[in-house]
Amino acid sequence: MRILSDDVKQHVGQTIHIEGWLHKKRLLGGLTFINVRDRHGITQVVVQDKLEVEKLRGLQIGTVLAVDGLVKEEPRAPSGAEIHDAKITVLVRVTEEPPIEIDKPISHKPENLDTLFDYRALGLRNLQEAKIFKIRSDLLRYIRDFLYGQDFVEINTPKLVAGAAEGGAEVFKLDYFGKEATLAQSPQLYKQMMVGVYERIFEIAPAFRAELSATTRHVSEVTMLDVEIGFIDGHDDVLKLLQDLVYKVLTRAYQEHADDLKSLNAPELVLKPEFPRYSMKQIHQMYQQATGKDTSKEIDLTPDEEKWICEYAKTNDGSEAVFATGLPASKMKFYHMKGDDDTARSADLLFRGIEISTVPQREHRLETLVEQMKVAGVDPNSPGFSAYVSAFKHGLPAHGGFGFGIDRLVEKTIGLGNVKEAILFPRDINRLAP
Amino acid sequence: MRILSDDVKQHVGQTIHIEGWLHKKRLLGGLTFINVRDRHGITQVVVQDKLEVEKLRGLQIGTVLAVDGLVKEEPRAPSGAEIHDAKITVLVRVTEEPPIEIDKPISHKPENLDTLFDYRALGLRNLQEAKIFKIRSDLLRYIRDFLYGQDFVEINTPKLVAGAAEGGAEVFKLDYFGKEATLAQSPQLYKQMMVGVYERIFEIAPAFRAELSATTRHVSEVTMLDVEIGFIDGHDDVLKLLQDLVYKVLTRAYQEHADDLKSLNAPELVLKPEFPRYSMKQIHQMYQQATGKDTSKEIDLTPDEEKWICEYAKTNDGSEAVFATGLPASKMKFYHMKGDDDTARSADLLFRGIEISTVPQREHRLETLVEQMKVAGVDPNSPGFSAYVSAFKHGLPAHGGFGFGIDRLVEKTIGLGNVKEAILFPRDINRLAP
Repeated sequence: MRILSDDVKQHVGQTIHIEGWLHKKRLLGGLTFINVRDRHGITQVVVQDKLEVEKLRGLQIGTVLAVDGLVKEEPRAPSGAEIHDAKITVLVRVTEEPPIEIDKPISHKPENLDTLFDYRALGLRNLQEAKIFKIRSDLLRYIRDFLYGQDFVEINTPKLVAGAAEGGAEVFKLDYFGKEATLAQSPQLYKQMMVGVYERIFEIAPAFRAELSATTRHVSEVTMLDVEIGFIDGHDDVLKLLQDLVYKVLTRAYQEHADDLKSLNAPELVLKPEFPRYSMKQIHQMYQQATGKDTSKEIDLTPDEEKWICEYAKTNDGSEAVFATGLPASKMKFYHMKGDDDTARSADLLFRGIEISTVPQREHRLETLVEQMKVAGVDPNSPGFSAYVSAFKHGLPAHGGFGFGIDRLVEKTIGLGNVKEAILFPRDINRLAP
Repeated sequence: MRILSDDVKQHVGQTIHIEGWLHKKRLLGGLTFINVRDRHGITQVVVQDKLEVEKLRGLQIGTVLAVDGLVKEEPRAPSGAEIHDAKITVLVRVTEEPPIEIDKPISHKPENLDTLFDYRALGLRNLQEAKIFKIRSDLLRYIRDFLYGQDFVEINTPKLVAGAAEGGAEVFKLDYFGKEATLAQSPQLYKQMMVGVYERIFEIAPAFRAELSATTRHVSEVTMLDVEIGFIDGHDDVLKLLQDLVYKVLTRAYQEHADDLKSLNAPELVLKPEFPRYSMKQIHQMYQQATGKDTSKEIDLTPDEEKWICEYAKTNDGSEAVFATGLPASKMKFYHMKGDDDTARSADLLFRGIEISTVPQREHRLETLVEQMKVAGVDPNSPGFSAYVSAFKHGLPAHGGFGFGIDRLVEKTIGLGNVKEAILFPRDINRLAP
């Protein structure tokens, strides 16, 4: 039976069988030491017998092998024990040197990102690198656990659609049996329609946006979490749901992955169950007082303001997450609800310097919605929108929701510098492979 | 505080607040009875006060309302209790009659499917219909629970790709910033590459196929579960993993949704932890003996044979799931491993009359793989394949895996007649909206 690396030290004094990849090979005092990698880590193996050493001649990192040998305690070995009297079986011979050093993590500096992504499947064989997507997998799990615990139903909505919910130029189009289809930018219309059935629904799925910018923030394919809840008493219910989700998921990640996050140089988590809230106007004023820069004419927070208010909240409120409320109505989508004055019933959630989600209440009153659609140039009777409008015609309660990029959450949780570093095989204007 | 329908009977003698949709309204012996639907079911409300009855005048099914009233025990009411002395607050007025009867489930007969899908978001407001996608959500949860429990990492691979893993004509193509991209038919190449990192990975994501056929089996967008495991001792390990997953997920669904499945007329589940295995040749012979029809020249099981062997295994082996082994090598994909004679190391899993998954061991030996790619007309050095080949060049262990459509699993679990009935908003050659 195969023993995994983190279990080896439980077998001191026994002969065990391990399998994995040759990860490192070195000569030390006439002995050959090899490191064997498996999905849980590294096992150190001492190869003494000359015939056994001979089996490894000419073989490169990545060679797949099995080792049978005796476990001895060894505090200097990665797992606290090592294997002696090793008998080696080569399962897959690798004779070509890897194009990158697998034993060292690839630098994530901007000038190295192309190498990082070109050799992604090999680069992740590095134990440090591999942690990133293990944490990502767990964040997905924590998010679903949270939502299932709150009585949510998971849905799958189509990605090939007749009309774009968000409009704009950033839509991928394709021929669909002679008709024009677009790739969904978000499940916005579908998730609102499904509030009429399950009240509380979520989806985690790819979303597509033909982003012409090549920046640290832009990719053309993202993994989106989309959440929607009905029968809210007001906008506050939506803010509280997102706040609760982010707080629980992040604190769980920082508990269960404490060592991993430390070793990846992730920042310490500074968070409270209740996130501070500042209106856009307040932030403009506070920012001007602190920096002398007047941003009162901007309809959005400037990137520098987003960083500033996050730092401010971290220092003064003990929270790296902060809500910017009172977003201007002029920035509103047609499906958002207008507030009492010139604002929308919407807020941005900022975390560690950037916006990670917009959190609006939806316009659920049919007449107002149809009016807002017309102003936005959207035809309520077109194939992409008629079923959406019909859901309101037959009764949707007050509702709200949010979406955020899983990629960006992973990026900010770990403290990576570019959203693409949090994506296994990122897609942008220059990158369609691997 | 809002009380949900299934909790009402816990509040007998108390005045409570409920919110939901007007689901039914009728006059009986001078009293007005209304049914109020929420995400957990129905609450019966007796409206006595004339002013309260007046509030409902002209309002249609779908109207969103709040009711405050006294809970009385009433065995004839859906939840075992009903609300008296009701005070009604209309939250959203609906004055248009719904285009379909929401109180009766839509017939799922082939001639009604267009209506079913055209009015999907309204049709699902029927309590029976709604169960389908609640069960689907739970099947997804059970699958993930199983896989996380087996040390799997969840990945997200790109759906915009440079080359099609499966090839063939059924590929959607689109312009990607001046390059040609295809929509991924499966994460095949990516999941194999990731075996080199995490050994055990899975993904649940949409996959796209430009299916020209309009049948009960064909859709152009599916939700696929894809699973891959490394360091297998042989093909048997892959079969056992799928067998274990299907057994655990289905028995859990039939336990936790016993009443729902019964009310949806789902067949009784007949399953054992170990699924019977018959080779293609055996099945051809047994089928010929039983029916007189000679299918020995077919490279696949015929649809009638698939049904026959499932019935046979159900009766004789006590299992509605059965493996057809010894698939012909001529049907193999380039990434499958050839068996010892003219067969592939691959099997089909059949369940309730149809194939739900193909379960192969992969070819992990670089030279053989490259040869098989060339025979299949796939260029190992092209942008869509070079990183894939590189993963083998630097060592991939023996591995195997499978993919299956979540839609088809839901269809067969519930006993629906068409895969589209298991998809929220299905896509086929004729359908791109809603």
